[in-house]
Amino acid sequence: MQGSLSKPKRRPYRRISKGDIQKGDVTIKGRLWFDVGGETYLAPGRVTLLERIDEYGSITKAARSMDMSYRHAWLLVDDMNRKAPEPLVVRATGGRGGGGTLLTDEGKKALKKFNELQMKLKNFIEELKARD
Amino acid sequence: MQGSLSKPKRRPYRRISKGDIQKGDVTIKGRLWFDVGGETYLAPGRVTLLERIDEYGSITKAARSMDMSYRHAWLLVDDMNRKAPEPLVVRATGGRGGGGTLLTDEGKKALKKFNELQMKLKNFIEELKARD
Repeated sequence: MQGSLSKPKRRPYRRISKGDIQKGDVTIKGRLWFDVGGETYLAPGRVTLLERIDEYGSITKAARSMDMSYRHAWLLVDDMNRKAPEPLVVRATGGRGGGGTLLTDEGKKALKKFNELQMKLKNFIEELKARD
Repeated sequence: MQGSLSKPKRRPYRRISKGDIQKGDVTIKGRLWFDVGGETYLAPGRVTLLERIDEYGSITKAARSMDMSYRHAWLLVDDMNRKAPEPLVVRATGGRGGGGTLLTDEGKKALKKFNELQMKLKNFIEELKARD
């Protein structure tokens, strides 16, 4: 004989499921990231930050566009720079723009590589769905 | 001209990078999970919980083996049961074992499917490494 599971005595402080969920309508999801020394090096959020730095030429503006503090963005950039074979982001001094922050060739290469693999993962997940 | 990035004025409250990291030694990592209605349905931790329930025949023992509270384990199981087409875990009443908790055929099917796709992801990631 089978019965329903006995509930814990105290009431859950948070409902983690909803009553109106479409049962059995399963979506396969995937995430890809790069580690260095067992720690995150590049991941989707970090890569978006690099793309925004490339777009705006400024960590401040890139961070703002992502609702991220400058401090947090700076720590992420510093962390990526330390783990990369060469810095991904540098400060450009002088010149016509009067400074700013820019992506190095290494940074652009890392972006390209990450986005290529991300696309391959997407195709892989799509194939899993198709075959299911 | 390029200079190093200017540090924020306050000191970081937490070092998120270490000085002794092997630079450029990149590992590609991946994670797979199933969503239902835009929420997590099956993911590596939840699947381990199902496997432990199958092994121990008890949510309490399964939770303990994962350093998880009974409450948290129960909420996860309840959430999976609600999202699955049929319950994955049920309470068995009576019989020789005098009750306990067990995985249904649906639960075993879900485990098998998840682990199969997990293995395919692993192979896919390995291939990405090999080609890099």
